[in-house]
Amino acid sequence: MIKDLESIFKKSHSDIKQAFLEIDSPDKLNISLDRWKRPEGGGGTTFAIQESNFFDNCAVNFSSISGKKLPKAALGNSLLKSTRYGYQAMGVSVISHPKNPNVPSSHMNIRLFCILDKKGSIKEWWAGGGYDLTPFFAHEEDCKKWHLDAKLMLDNHKKGLYRIFSKNCNEYFNIPHRNERRGIGGIFFDNFTQMSLEKTTNMLLDIAKQYKESYIQLSNVRKKQKFSLKDKEFQLYRRGRYAEFNLAYDRGTKFGLESNGRISSILASLPSDVKWSYKKDKSYLKMEKELLEYINRDWNV
Amino acid sequence: MIKDLESIFKKSHSDIKQAFLEIDSPDKLNISLDRWKRPEGGGGTTFAIQESNFFDNCAVNFSSISGKKLPKAALGNSLLKSTRYGYQAMGVSVISHPKNPNVPSSHMNIRLFCILDKKGSIKEWWAGGGYDLTPFFAHEEDCKKWHLDAKLMLDNHKKGLYRIFSKNCNEYFNIPHRNERRGIGGIFFDNFTQMSLEKTTNMLLDIAKQYKESYIQLSNVRKKQKFSLKDKEFQLYRRGRYAEFNLAYDRGTKFGLESNGRISSILASLPSDVKWSYKKDKSYLKMEKELLEYINRDWNV
Repeated sequence: MIKDLESIFKKSHSDIKQAFLEIDSPDKLNISLDRWKRPEGGGGTTFAIQESNFFDNCAVNFSSISGKKLPKAALGNSLLKSTRYGYQAMGVSVISHPKNPNVPSSHMNIRLFCILDKKGSIKEWWAGGGYDLTPFFAHEEDCKKWHLDAKLMLDNHKKGLYRIFSKNCNEYFNIPHRNERRGIGGIFFDNFTQMSLEKTTNMLLDIAKQYKESYIQLSNVRKKQKFSLKDKEFQLYRRGRYAEFNLAYDRGTKFGLESNGRISSILASLPSDVKWSYKKDKSYLKMEKELLEYINRDWNV
Repeated sequence: MIKDLESIFKKSHSDIKQAFLEIDSPDKLNISLDRWKRPEGGGGTTFAIQESNFFDNCAVNFSSISGKKLPKAALGNSLLKSTRYGYQAMGVSVISHPKNPNVPSSHMNIRLFCILDKKGSIKEWWAGGGYDLTPFFAHEEDCKKWHLDAKLMLDNHKKGLYRIFSKNCNEYFNIPHRNERRGIGGIFFDNFTQMSLEKTTNMLLDIAKQYKESYIQLSNVRKKQKFSLKDKEFQLYRRGRYAEFNLAYDRGTKFGLESNGRISSILASLPSDVKWSYKKDKSYLKMEKELLEYINRDWNV
């Protein structure tokens, strides 16, 4: 059963990897594909592109790790589970930071935590995941489409999920010290046990697929837009917010660091180039004001 | 009494600001000097230089804030204090990220927390502070001198303090997920109450003065060294570690964010330009290996 679930996640990893290769057509030198093992049990595959035509950097991670004691960050809001016979946690996570500031950064994650019994079968499980979009120059039609795609996909699995998941997403991808959201949202959920394991796995796969389709479609449109040095600089400053969120608040990052995960894979979520500045000029502040009107708005459809 | 203490801290702020102006001689456009107020009480002055001859960025903050409830992060290891009549927390903090990668980044902080009584006098107090150095290309003589200067200065106040403070520094400026220290250390202490308030204030002032002298002297030597683009790139990647530490672990940053401080002043500690990369090339790894031999070593004299 664990093996079957792993194959499903691996397939999803491979599909997104393929889509990123196609949108980018990078030189071999820019691609990394590493299989790694974790001393405590399990391992994963990290695919990364850096400094290529389309991406400044992106990473597509698959991991399936096992152990005796679940790290705190894995538990989310759920009660402490008994893990006498160990756990298996598997997932796919994707992060993309395109070169062109007209193309948003994006993130997708699907994950499944399984508590095992004496025979190594699944005694208890819960799922989590979601995806969200971080534009630098936002467009109303992109935001609406991003959310509508997510709603239609989730409605196929269970009516009402989108409303909850999109609200979760706004709450989770929030940077309290900046009083800003990370982006225009999407969907997010954790500790999900409402449906059967089979139905839930199907939903996770569909989430990964929908993310890929929505993101590639949007990227193909926006990557054609020209940008100035000033636009690029604006993107680098705004990426500072991304780094602030990931390092100071993100539970996925914390889980990785606490579970003695592979640091280079966990922190592959950070953007390749980031700028911070004590003082910004007027043209920057104007661009930021425009952006904030998009990212601090509820796009839920 | 509070006013007198504030004047002392302000003098220290002003001295370091002056020293940074002299080593840099920046254009007016590159300088910011902002006086700000905090809605809940108190305020401060932030001096910053960005993109100038010597600095990529630096910030010298003075703040003296008051309130009713001390943020958790302020308490360090001490027991919870009763703050019925409020507190006053004042300090100077300095961060410098020079342009030339041969010149180390540096940090200094002195701070005093006072619990007030009914009349607004100081009922209880504790002090904290220290300074540390983060080189990118390290030199044995610089590391030794940095520590020796600190030891000689502290010995004047109380024998034995340097041994404790330099050990604290190694423990505090540690990045557990990287298994690396932030730099070659220096001194660090918190919840200090061992001497009288007058003697402690003198020590805090001397710490700020010694930091300034040691750092300016070192900078004047190293700023003459030429550097390549590759050296600069190495510095930007290593600055990623600085951002990781400040955003994920630093208690000073947390205190600022929790106390609803002025975000732009708190995060002025972040370097202006940072790079992260999933994969590094051989020349990078060689430089990093050399550096780690310096920063993961005990330089305590």
